[in-house]
Amino acid sequence: MKTGAEYLSSLRDGRSVYLQGTKVEDVTTHPGLREAAEWVADGYDRFHSGEAGAFHPMYELPRSAEDLRRRMRVLEESDFTASTSAVGLALLTAAPSLAKADPVYALRAKDYFEHARAEDLRMAEVITDAKGNRALPPSAQDDPDLYLRVVERSSEGLVVSGAKFHITGGPVVHELVVMPTKRMKAGEGDYAVAFAVPANAPGVTMISTSYAPKGDDVRHYPVSGRFSMPEAMVVFDRVLVPWDRVFLDGEVAQSAVLAHSLGLWERLSGIADMAHLADLLVGAAQLVAEYNGTAGIAHIREKIAEMAIYATMVRASLEAALTHSEETEDGMVFPSELFTNAGKFYGASEYHLMVRHLHDIAGASVITAPTMADFDNPDLNGYISKYLRTMEGVDAERRMRVFHLIRDLTADALGGWHQVANIQSGGGLFAQRLVAKNHYDIDHARGLAMEAAGIAKGGE
Amino acid sequence: MKTGAEYLSSLRDGRSVYLQGTKVEDVTTHPGLREAAEWVADGYDRFHSGEAGAFHPMYELPRSAEDLRRRMRVLEESDFTASTSAVGLALLTAAPSLAKADPVYALRAKDYFEHARAEDLRMAEVITDAKGNRALPPSAQDDPDLYLRVVERSSEGLVVSGAKFHITGGPVVHELVVMPTKRMKAGEGDYAVAFAVPANAPGVTMISTSYAPKGDDVRHYPVSGRFSMPEAMVVFDRVLVPWDRVFLDGEVAQSAVLAHSLGLWERLSGIADMAHLADLLVGAAQLVAEYNGTAGIAHIREKIAEMAIYATMVRASLEAALTHSEETEDGMVFPSELFTNAGKFYGASEYHLMVRHLHDIAGASVITAPTMADFDNPDLNGYISKYLRTMEGVDAERRMRVFHLIRDLTADALGGWHQVANIQSGGGLFAQRLVAKNHYDIDHARGLAMEAAGIAKGGE
Amino acid sequence: MKTGAEYLSSLRDGRSVYLQGTKVEDVTTHPGLREAAEWVADGYDRFHSGEAGAFHPMYELPRSAEDLRRRMRVLEESDFTASTSAVGLALLTAAPSLAKADPVYALRAKDYFEHARAEDLRMAEVITDAKGNRALPPSAQDDPDLYLRVVERSSEGLVVSGAKFHITGGPVVHELVVMPTKRMKAGEGDYAVAFAVPANAPGVTMISTSYAPKGDDVRHYPVSGRFSMPEAMVVFDRVLVPWDRVFLDGEVAQSAVLAHSLGLWERLSGIADMAHLADLLVGAAQLVAEYNGTAGIAHIREKIAEMAIYATMVRASLEAALTHSEETEDGMVFPSELFTNAGKFYGASEYHLMVRHLHDIAGASVITAPTMADFDNPDLNGYISKYLRTMEGVDAERRMRVFHLIRDLTADALGGWHQVANIQSGGGLFAQRLVAKNHYDIDHARGLAMEAAGIAKGGE
Amino acid sequence: MKTGAEYLSSLRDGRSVYLQGTKVEDVTTHPGLREAAEWVADGYDRFHSGEAGAFHPMYELPRSAEDLRRRMRVLEESDFTASTSAVGLALLTAAPSLAKADPVYALRAKDYFEHARAEDLRMAEVITDAKGNRALPPSAQDDPDLYLRVVERSSEGLVVSGAKFHITGGPVVHELVVMPTKRMKAGEGDYAVAFAVPANAPGVTMISTSYAPKGDDVRHYPVSGRFSMPEAMVVFDRVLVPWDRVFLDGEVAQSAVLAHSLGLWERLSGIADMAHLADLLVGAAQLVAEYNGTAGIAHIREKIAEMAIYATMVRASLEAALTHSEETEDGMVFPSELFTNAGKFYGASEYHLMVRHLHDIAGASVITAPTMADFDNPDLNGYISKYLRTMEGVDAERRMRVFHLIRDLTADALGGWHQVANIQSGGGLFAQRLVAKNHYDIDHARGLAMEAAGIAKGGE
Repeated sequence: MKTGAEYLSSLRDGRSVYLQGTKVEDVTTHPGLREAAEWVADGYDRFHSGEAGAFHPMYELPRSAEDLRRRMRVLEESDFTASTSAVGLALLTAAPSLAKADPVYALRAKDYFEHARAEDLRMAEVITDAKGNRALPPSAQDDPDLYLRVVERSSEGLVVSGAKFHITGGPVVHELVVMPTKRMKAGEGDYAVAFAVPANAPGVTMISTSYAPKGDDVRHYPVSGRFSMPEAMVVFDRVLVPWDRVFLDGEVAQSAVLAHSLGLWERLSGIADMAHLADLLVGAAQLVAEYNGTAGIAHIREKIAEMAIYATMVRASLEAALTHSEETEDGMVFPSELFTNAGKFYGASEYHLMVRHLHDIAGASVITAPTMADFDNPDLNGYISKYLRTMEGVDAERRMRVFHLIRDLTADALGGWHQVANIQSGGGLFAQRLVAKNHYDIDHARGLAMEAAGIAKGGE
Repeated sequence: MKTGAEYLSSLRDGRSVYLQGTKVEDVTTHPGLREAAEWVADGYDRFHSGEAGAFHPMYELPRSAEDLRRRMRVLEESDFTASTSAVGLALLTAAPSLAKADPVYALRAKDYFEHARAEDLRMAEVITDAKGNRALPPSAQDDPDLYLRVVERSSEGLVVSGAKFHITGGPVVHELVVMPTKRMKAGEGDYAVAFAVPANAPGVTMISTSYAPKGDDVRHYPVSGRFSMPEAMVVFDRVLVPWDRVFLDGEVAQSAVLAHSLGLWERLSGIADMAHLADLLVGAAQLVAEYNGTAGIAHIREKIAEMAIYATMVRASLEAALTHSEETEDGMVFPSELFTNAGKFYGASEYHLMVRHLHDIAGASVITAPTMADFDNPDLNGYISKYLRTMEGVDAERRMRVFHLIRDLTADALGGWHQVANIQSGGGLFAQRLVAKNHYDIDHARGLAMEAAGIAKGGE
Repeated sequence: MKTGAEYLSSLRDGRSVYLQGTKVEDVTTHPGLREAAEWVADGYDRFHSGEAGAFHPMYELPRSAEDLRRRMRVLEESDFTASTSAVGLALLTAAPSLAKADPVYALRAKDYFEHARAEDLRMAEVITDAKGNRALPPSAQDDPDLYLRVVERSSEGLVVSGAKFHITGGPVVHELVVMPTKRMKAGEGDYAVAFAVPANAPGVTMISTSYAPKGDDVRHYPVSGRFSMPEAMVVFDRVLVPWDRVFLDGEVAQSAVLAHSLGLWERLSGIADMAHLADLLVGAAQLVAEYNGTAGIAHIREKIAEMAIYATMVRASLEAALTHSEETEDGMVFPSELFTNAGKFYGASEYHLMVRHLHDIAGASVITAPTMADFDNPDLNGYISKYLRTMEGVDAERRMRVFHLIRDLTADALGGWHQVANIQSGGGLFAQRLVAKNHYDIDHARGLAMEAAGIAKGGE
Repeated sequence: MKTGAEYLSSLRDGRSVYLQGTKVEDVTTHPGLREAAEWVADGYDRFHSGEAGAFHPMYELPRSAEDLRRRMRVLEESDFTASTSAVGLALLTAAPSLAKADPVYALRAKDYFEHARAEDLRMAEVITDAKGNRALPPSAQDDPDLYLRVVERSSEGLVVSGAKFHITGGPVVHELVVMPTKRMKAGEGDYAVAFAVPANAPGVTMISTSYAPKGDDVRHYPVSGRFSMPEAMVVFDRVLVPWDRVFLDGEVAQSAVLAHSLGLWERLSGIADMAHLADLLVGAAQLVAEYNGTAGIAHIREKIAEMAIYATMVRASLEAALTHSEETEDGMVFPSELFTNAGKFYGASEYHLMVRHLHDIAGASVITAPTMADFDNPDLNGYISKYLRTMEGVDAERRMRVFHLIRDLTADALGGWHQVANIQSGGGLFAQRLVAKNHYDIDHARGLAMEAAGIAKGGE
């Protein structure tokens, strides 16, 4: 297993990363990216073991609901490992289906998983294509590269071109695991391609964005100043993929398998993240109400209660998904699609209301509280100390910290990121809703209605 | 165990029941009540066993989450047993607390449970007082009977007076299990009284209401025409309660224990009922969309999906409540308060939106479809057959049946009952919300926020 | 002008009306219909004038926003005249467009309007077809009559067949004014037909439904027992329409004109009705809270406030629609399409939440309060008087009356009718939403966004 | 009237302003504040007239609903004048009430208004106190300055100390118009103080915050990079107020009058702003849907329609408030309290849902689109041009601009400001709700319910 320092060192590999218009020489030191690298490095150190054969717990295969439950706790308390975990399990869950296209795909997927486990790698999920005009399929776009595709095949491997969007963590992982964004149709074989390449593969360029505060006083950003993860637009410009890293090449029938498997694992960690964030928002609401002296007011208590119920219902969907986990032929378990997807939709669709409650409880100081730099200025310190405190035990500093926390989490760049990401991860609310429905037992429900209506089933 | 016929016979016991202003001589034959009695009788027959010592599965004590899960299936597939089940378990769950007031209370509660099991009785939950002016406590009402109270004590037992409202199933059960509606205060000992009396005890009068269609063509009410359960206002006019049926008498410290225990079990079956009803509504939505030829339209599919997600989230809360069940000292398990209460609030508060979706999908024929009597009239049959059908395989009759089902379930007397009962069972949305919050780990959430804000815990 | 008695007499005209499977000999005396006839008759008497040339104010043409505002007050305070008013104005508003198809149509429409004014008639809007399979157009249905159509033309007039659904008030009006339900396409000329026929025209059959309490104690239904309006499925079986009552025959280009004009006037009275109903629900909420002693509780006041805001916002849309009324070439004014349709959607989509608030405030006695017959029974009167009262000044009777009002309005047959009708009148929420959008100035909004984004308009 | 340049020059008056911990020497050049000063300066130039006696249209007194409507258009199309407008009208609307305390207050208020008009001044609303522990009144705080108060009175005037929070535009106005934040009680006379002082008065310190992008590429912030308005915490440290600027001093009975008057005008411009912002969001939604190729998809159109309805309903409340404006004794008109407050609550409470719809429509590129600096980099320009474009006519640049617009408006610092400010301006949702209700005619509604329930009014 790698140490944090080894991990940081491994990122200095010549990768081509840009942020805000300039090339980043070293992602481990560049403001806006280094925070992400350090966050991941911390995770390495926390789980590090020098024992031979040791590996990170997320590389363990879940064999029971209890295994899954334990895994979720590891993910919750740890660094950015969700995408690595999801990619790994997706490859294994999809392997039987990939084997139907060609048994070699399944073998390569398993080999790759073992390689990643042995080398203690971190991987990004690389799915969403540029897509061009959404009203047209890949093959009808006026630029054929608007979906990533195979542009050449040789004895060495595939050559691919295209761009993938919204690649969380791209600049700070070792590997990019690429898969088609949706089911391809007959004649779109060049788009039905899945593979892995290192982040520094020739022809790969990452154009990053980050909600990390750049140049600002980090104390004004108690969360995003410490923990941030960049997104990247990843361009593949005639990138060579060696055959042993190709997991699909041309079989449109299997083109959606990987995205589907990945989606489930991603949404599972999505609901875990939403439950954690929800608890944090409930806590912030309670804290600011206490500090303001409003915790006893009926409508404040009511709003905090609604937030707590939201957090609990998101967690209920996670619990139900684990309790009703299912098993693959290989004996690996995966969570219930129904409960996972319903929880993802519920959590994303009600999130904005929780933020509204929090803002309603906290008051306008969320956006107008002085900064810690103001507090440090001797001209102002007396004024701020006097007027921001509220009562015995609640001094100005702790109250300001809570306002900054709330602003950072919900009313500034990170807050915007949460709002958009909650909705968009898992394909937008529309997609989440329909995926959830597809796993609902509509025939059972229909049968209940027929029986209640007095319509003979046989008469159908 | 009793047969259905034995149960029906046992109801002819001289009980004093009124419906719509007239006294009911026999609840098993009176329209508006007999449907309820027959429904319960069917349940007796379904679970009947002649074996010595056999008893209904709801009298089995749950010793594990799996036991609870099995129990929920029994309740879901069976007749009106939820209140009997809840009362029984509430007595046992509360017993250790009652024992603190006086060990004899706990013994009587257990004896009573065994008696009910042996006799295969059905019991009603009798809680809500008349309450008078809600702004005043029991002891400050201008009429002291506005909360049920002990008016006399003798060697034979207690004498009580008062009225209890919204007693579901009262007219068709054997026993009334009475408990205080809320925590009483010092000096309100006469109101801190819990006991059981038979439904035909002298001095007990039940004034019933029912959503059963009275005198109308039952085919216009496919559900409420077959399954209905009356509510009753139960008046206690100097009713004698023998000592061995007294479970609390004067100890205000324990006055809320029974209602609290009962509430949990009642809300658990509440979420199970809501999940079942939700599935039925989803099925009705799907069926009517298919029959109308609109099942493929995007916004219709979207609404059905939201209904399915609602049903799934209610069920998720049930599943999470069972998975996280806890154990009493006696080794009996009970569901998680947190998940049960959160699910109850969520299900009740979003129910109206599901009904709106269903009405939106179904169309105005929900309220304007001809009756089955119209269909039978030879002058009209041809017209209705011609114009109510929509396509090959969807004839007028089955389409009308679905419209009547939807109207009966959601837009007529039973529909109104569901809307009000969903909200009011469990004490109104306000109470449900706060009960849920009381079981939420607010300290954990608060700690998360303090840590994220950079506020030292020690500094508190 | 007619008196109420003359109106009632005019309904005994041999019309073919059915209710619950039996033929109605006289709609003015039949339970379930007579209440409607009497309600309309009252309206005749209230506005009656013996002066020559006098006519009902709804037959006055609005020439200014102030005229419209006055008209809305007349409709609000009066009997069932909304559909007559809407039909009349729709014919006149549509006349210029109908003239494009054939000038004679416009002349006939105006003649007909004057005839109706002179004879003081009441008319029903007859629009919605049977529709069969909604996935198919009229001409592709397997039964060509599933949309009403011309089956023959002669020197006397048209002969039509088909059925029209959800015809509010059909059994108690003089005239049926029929128009196509939607825009017809080329080749569907036989479906592009608009006309008027008397309610007793040979070949017309009305199959009625009613939320009027049938046979029950009317005191249990304080609103629907006094005011009810039937719906009817109206069958046209080879009905002859004389030429001077034909307003469109075959011109598909104009087929949607009448329904569109009518829709606007109907939705205008729809928002006025919703505003009135909302005020009534707010009042009921306030009253029941006072009677329960809960009017001072924070969350109760908050919910009543939200209901009052809903009522106010519906009324705001009405006011804005009137203030921004527009003028036809003939100088007649009509309300703003934008504000009318937005208000209709808002009012319908939020209505369920108001009902939830009302149920939450009122408590379970909405569904369990004894009936007035119970109250009359000397065995029960003492108990009910004692236990349903709450405080000095709030006796059992008035409290029961409020519970029955709430149940009747929101949790029984009339309540179901309101819930469905609110959503379905105006074509379902989906249609209302899109109609509203079509009148929104999207180009202006788009321009604002381009300017804010720094995108040159010229560059488009 | 002043020109923009004269205005800017007038701000260099030695005022004590801080931003992010450092003192600002010149607010007209300091990044984070200069944008605000320039925005206001532009407004000066737009309305400038050299004619003697000319004044800004916002200083015109509204004498009719039509005047008000015209005024709203001026405010909508112009610079930051809303607070100056509100302060001016609030002083005049409150004058008759202030005169009841002492006629001299009313005279001073009118003199001050005329002075401000003649000098073409800009004023800030200075209301919200520090407040300390919200559970305690001003006089019970452990620090008496937690509400601003008179600490000394002399022949020259009052001396005041305290702090006021959330003072929008403070650093760039000429005058601070200070009033009590709420109704004071007997014994709290020192807190019942209203007055005006120049922004550079000795003892006044402003600690500013701003959502203006500081140091970042302004093109990434198409709105907040051009238009921003700082908030300030304004400290009054023994500030002398000459008597002719004192509008209230000690009369607790009148202490709420000014805040009440101001609140109405502020909320009126609040709904106008929300309507404008809503139109902008609808436009952004439409534009991004077109650019993505999704404008024809059913659920996208539906969401845009809901956004358009929201914008229309907010505007309806504004229109209704103007149509139903009322008149003071002096003949000045003011908008309807009922419609203004209902609209404010509606707009604020539904705003989050509109943002959710916009994010759902736009996609994740809102948070991941490259910056314009990336676009300028020749290494990246080709990639971005190729992969961000979607179709003929939609190049990468215009698409990026729309994503940045949406992020800036709804998912970054300005977006957070909007979310919080929408809810908090007007006192939080709870206060808005109850203020709206206080102006609703509950007695009328109650009367409707009594009549419908059959309860005699006389019996009350």
